[in-house]
Amino acid sequence: MKLYEFNPAPNPRRVRMFLAEKGIKVDMEQVDIFKGENLSPEYRAINPRGMIPTLVFDDGSFIDETMAICRYFEAEQPEPSLFGKTPREQGAVESWVRRIEHDGIAQAAYVIRNSNPAFENRGVAGLDDCPQIPDLVERGRKGLTKFFKTLDDQLAKNEFIAGSNYSAADINALCAVDFAEFVGVTVPEDLTHLSAWRQKVTARESSKA
Amino acid sequence: MKLYEFNPAPNPRRVRMFLAEKGIKVDMEQVDIFKGENLSPEYRAINPRGMIPTLVFDDGSFIDETMAICRYFEAEQPEPSLFGKTPREQGAVESWVRRIEHDGIAQAAYVIRNSNPAFENRGVAGLDDCPQIPDLVERGRKGLTKFFKTLDDQLAKNEFIAGSNYSAADINALCAVDFAEFVGVTVPEDLTHLSAWRQKVTARESSKA
Repeated sequence: MKLYEFNPAPNPRRVRMFLAEKGIKVDMEQVDIFKGENLSPEYRAINPRGMIPTLVFDDGSFIDETMAICRYFEAEQPEPSLFGKTPREQGAVESWVRRIEHDGIAQAAYVIRNSNPAFENRGVAGLDDCPQIPDLVERGRKGLTKFFKTLDDQLAKNEFIAGSNYSAADINALCAVDFAEFVGVTVPEDLTHLSAWRQKVTARESSKA
Repeated sequence: MKLYEFNPAPNPRRVRMFLAEKGIKVDMEQVDIFKGENLSPEYRAINPRGMIPTLVFDDGSFIDETMAICRYFEAEQPEPSLFGKTPREQGAVESWVRRIEHDGIAQAAYVIRNSNPAFENRGVAGLDDCPQIPDLVERGRKGLTKFFKTLDDQLAKNEFIAGSNYSAADINALCAVDFAEFVGVTVPEDLTHLSAWRQKVTARESSKA
């Protein structure tokens, strides 16, 4: 089994943090998205979609999509549970993961994918010949500002994103916030709950994975 | 417990089909997205995000996000399993669900959200004051054409979307294909595997839910 990933990108980081929290070790190989290595014929032979991260099994079959890879590992090794234990917890974690992806990670991706020359004609991951749309940069920035406030409000009432337990929602949220800052949208200083939580989850060993 | 939903929209339909396959009955109430009822103060008091579908518990807490609601019910009543049994199946189902949402449902949403006057300044669900971006209509149409071919290729080798068992991936794919046709992008006649599968899953009682 091998995980194809790219160290600086937020999606592979979500998987690495998930594995670190579970204490699972997997062989990893770097594929440079900035250089477009994920779109090379060599990599397309592994995953025709050119997606990173991708988990490849010894028989050549694979799972792509970040959270699908995490679901695979959650099923293989349920403890520590990162998608929630009770049905209510499971619903809450999945809801927050989706919200973080939509309101956070996707908005930061709008900013970088539609402004950075490295992504010219690659406005959406996985779609060929997809021109950049400059208006999406502003949409993304606005979305991130709202997103930070959402997290701060939630963390004013909860120790972790999805409630009282650390979960995949925290992994996703940390990657989203750090990715937002990477694309140039910083957390306002007055969001103290968000900042305190960020410090706490960044102090976990998994944040360095 | 009550499910707030809207009969003509694709996301609530994903939940209704999921419940039908499990044989679970839940009280439902209609909230008209076209009329913006989901953005009314009354509905915002239930779910401040204004998202449909939303599952509200008797204590007023809720789960939103379509697949999070499905995950809740999968945990509450595991049989028949719709997210896969083995870790590999679970990974495959989640991967296909994500892919269908990204390459199918989101593309159809791009088309309708950025062209239909009913969604003026509501270009993205859940974001206020979000102007329509006409270029996204063409991006969405191109995406859907590629998406149909992807499904056809997969169904040439597999009885169902994620392999040999009917799953949440089939529910999502049927809702995506029907939604695509609703926004005016039809399945090409030469995609016979996709058409045969579509006929088969449409024949299930759940497709009418």
